[in-house]
Amino acid sequence: MRRVKATVAYDGTGYAGYQFQPNMRTVQSVIDKALVKLHKDSSIYSVASGRTDAGVHAWGQVIHFDTPLELPLDRWQMALNVLLPKDVRIVKTELVDDDFHARYSATGKTYMFKWTSSEVQSPFERNYSVHLGKWRPDIDRMREAAKYIIGTHDFTSFCSSKTATENKVRTVRELTIERHGEELIMTVEGDGFLYNMVRTIAGMLFAVGIGWNEPCDMKEILEAKDRKKAGKTAPAHGLYLMNVTY
Amino acid sequence: MRRVKATVAYDGTGYAGYQFQPNMRTVQSVIDKALVKLHKDSSIYSVASGRTDAGVHAWGQVIHFDTPLELPLDRWQMALNVLLPKDVRIVKTELVDDDFHARYSATGKTYMFKWTSSEVQSPFERNYSVHLGKWRPDIDRMREAAKYIIGTHDFTSFCSSKTATENKVRTVRELTIERHGEELIMTVEGDGFLYNMVRTIAGMLFAVGIGWNEPCDMKEILEAKDRKKAGKTAPAHGLYLMNVTY
Repeated sequence: MRRVKATVAYDGTGYAGYQFQPNMRTVQSVIDKALVKLHKDSSIYSVASGRTDAGVHAWGQVIHFDTPLELPLDRWQMALNVLLPKDVRIVKTELVDDDFHARYSATGKTYMFKWTSSEVQSPFERNYSVHLGKWRPDIDRMREAAKYIIGTHDFTSFCSSKTATENKVRTVRELTIERHGEELIMTVEGDGFLYNMVRTIAGMLFAVGIGWNEPCDMKEILEAKDRKKAGKTAPAHGLYLMNVTY
Repeated sequence: MRRVKATVAYDGTGYAGYQFQPNMRTVQSVIDKALVKLHKDSSIYSVASGRTDAGVHAWGQVIHFDTPLELPLDRWQMALNVLLPKDVRIVKTELVDDDFHARYSATGKTYMFKWTSSEVQSPFERNYSVHLGKWRPDIDRMREAAKYIIGTHDFTSFCSSKTATENKVRTVRELTIERHGEELIMTVEGDGFLYNMVRTIAGMLFAVGIGWNEPCDMKEILEAKDRKKAGKTAPAHGLYLMNVTY
């Protein structure tokens, strides 16, 4: 058996999230279906770096799978892409050691969150960024708020109350806000993220940007360790999993 | 009654084309449904500059409609956009004279056709540009071929054999090919276009670009006045109606 690592890009619009759910169209289920078809073996399956919610996109999700097939490395990509729907694409494949694990070997992840400030939302962007409507968040206030998030904290206030993970301490290594024309882009890199954590951070930075909160509120909210202190989770369709590091 | 001119952008992916068809989701039917709802009057309807095929997009389709409503001009856009699905957006509205007609007053149209040459097609581009796969068309050959198209010609060879219009003489005023990173963009402006004409031109320029045809073949094909002489029509999802002039 050989272990293959694959980088996957997907448009999350048509999916009920990444993870397999019975009777639902999920990214994992279409990938595993392609693997089963290619191998003519229903026991083949993939393991991902983590799940993403319904509507969340990816440029750089990472998976691994074990295969008895002796396919040349450069053939894997095309062999899988012809079996996959066009909204899921294998963008890279590598052979890795048996001890590589897409989830447990991950040392960091980068997410992007995208808002757009066009007067009318482009019909082509409706599933790919959050329209700011009349709001024009102050980027300096957002950057000020971001400083409180960077570092190692207990992120209980910034994750879904449904989070099963006990240890809620995570390290955010980088958190930047940039404006590119009508796009407002938040990029966040850290050792790992709790359920809904990136979308809660995006929602809070937006709230600070439009004046609903003060930058220094972030400190208080973190210390409270209470999800009810942080505001609304930002919508899923603005979020992209960009990269997983190992 | 007042006549309103509206500029409409739409993602054609989810539509069976622009024009109304019974029991089909068309752009015209969702626009007219919004107008009927806003007016509480089932006799209100819109007239467009022309139809577009299933899967074809628009940034600048133009429509007009007559209305008894005394809505301030700046309210039309939002009033209609709240009633429209998010893949159809009114981007501009103007009051026009009674003799303005979206179709008959048009003096020119601009279309764009988009190909992309990324190694793997981005899942986000699958409905918005034609993937070149292994092909790398020669842009100089395409530009050479374009010279034969520019001008006033009988475009019988470049329109669908189903075209009902008798007069097939049209003037192409501008036809440019540009490369922007991985995108290859054809832009064509003229006094009007026959059914499938832009997609047939795009298909022929591609054929010349990859060496299936010579640039000078365009002259022969035009002169033949026979649709069978021109090659494949390029796919609908690469095409955008950009602008209509009056």
